[in-house]
Amino acid sequence: MNRDSRIVPSRYPKRAHHDPETIYPILDEALFCTMSFVHEGRVRSIPQSIVRVGDAVYFHASVGSHFFRSLAELEEVCITVTLADDIVVAKTAFNHSVNYRSVVMWGKPEVIDEHDEKYAAFKTLTEKMVPGSWDYLLPMTDKQMAKTMAIKVPITEASAKVRQGPPSDVESEEPIWTGLIPIKTVRGAPVPGPDAAGISLPAHLVSPTSVKE
Amino acid sequence: MNRDSRIVPSRYPKRAHHDPETIYPILDEALFCTMSFVHEGRVRSIPQSIVRVGDAVYFHASVGSHFFRSLAELEEVCITVTLADDIVVAKTAFNHSVNYRSVVMWGKPEVIDEHDEKYAAFKTLTEKMVPGSWDYLLPMTDKQMAKTMAIKVPITEASAKVRQGPPSDVESEEPIWTGLIPIKTVRGAPVPGPDAAGISLPAHLVSPTSVKE
Repeated sequence: MNRDSRIVPSRYPKRAHHDPETIYPILDEALFCTMSFVHEGRVRSIPQSIVRVGDAVYFHASVGSHFFRSLAELEEVCITVTLADDIVVAKTAFNHSVNYRSVVMWGKPEVIDEHDEKYAAFKTLTEKMVPGSWDYLLPMTDKQMAKTMAIKVPITEASAKVRQGPPSDVESEEPIWTGLIPIKTVRGAPVPGPDAAGISLPAHLVSPTSVKE
Repeated sequence: MNRDSRIVPSRYPKRAHHDPETIYPILDEALFCTMSFVHEGRVRSIPQSIVRVGDAVYFHASVGSHFFRSLAELEEVCITVTLADDIVVAKTAFNHSVNYRSVVMWGKPEVIDEHDEKYAAFKTLTEKMVPGSWDYLLPMTDKQMAKTMAIKVPITEASAKVRQGPPSDVESEEPIWTGLIPIKTVRGAPVPGPDAAGISLPAHLVSPTSVKE
């Protein structure tokens, strides 16, 4: 990946990271991203589920999606993920902050038609969303593969920003509490749908696990 | 707000909403957004905390931020928030989905210098991040006000997309569990910082409350 001067923050350069060791785990933890691009001279954004396989991220939609087909004609898209870890509480509102990990990346979208690459992207996404589920579900059919379009965006430029730690010091003797309020994204107990009557919860869904500790 | 043909999804038009009654609560529940814009012909995005007051959303940064100052020269920015509610588990990976509420909006950023509007934006943001805290904290000073830049983006075009409900039916008699895995964003117990020794936790922080039920 190239170091990208566009996304080196001028105020807090020490928060910026450009190594895959920092960037990839953030992409892997985030279930959703925002994809942004320029269309007819204007900026647009859409939320998307995201999965990384190797040095690329993948997206999917119905082959009937005109929007998705037009994505592949773009020179580049910008993809952003944000993981919030803590609200940072200081003695002043002014010194409040947020502990977070975020990634901004760019790449040129391309439609993937190769079976194995497409299959791997769907399998990895399914296992990311519901770990342990792929082998339990009905197998993906060739017909379903044909009805689903996969878009790959190689990670050609990327940058992470990370803020962790306690609040900035404020020179005040006032007895005002300061610290962190953790923000956690957790999975609740599975809620059976109308077709689940009489079907026992599979082992991989029995223990709700945290999406983000 | 104008109905915006750019963001009416062609695949699932019934998921789109254009009324403030749907859009504003989503903006109010999301602590963070992605702000996207075109700079020198290329698309950029940055994560930001977001607060709505009336028919606008507000952002803040140090007055020393060149980036923030340049924002006000843009004709428009695109702001996206996404709230994930459930992973929708079907019998096939193909029919998996996500229950979510998202908003995409556009507006022209402007720097706010008027004291009362700026103060209201900071107070509302602080109360959104840490409910009940504004009157407990050291009062915001004129010096702090002068060091902080506020950017307002009027909500001139906006659209919400909402998917809620059980998985799509799959014609299969296989006893495979289907339903929802709720995703919840919750606040953990406050963690005292290094300056909090001997200071008791204020009442508004005693009961951790869920960010998103």
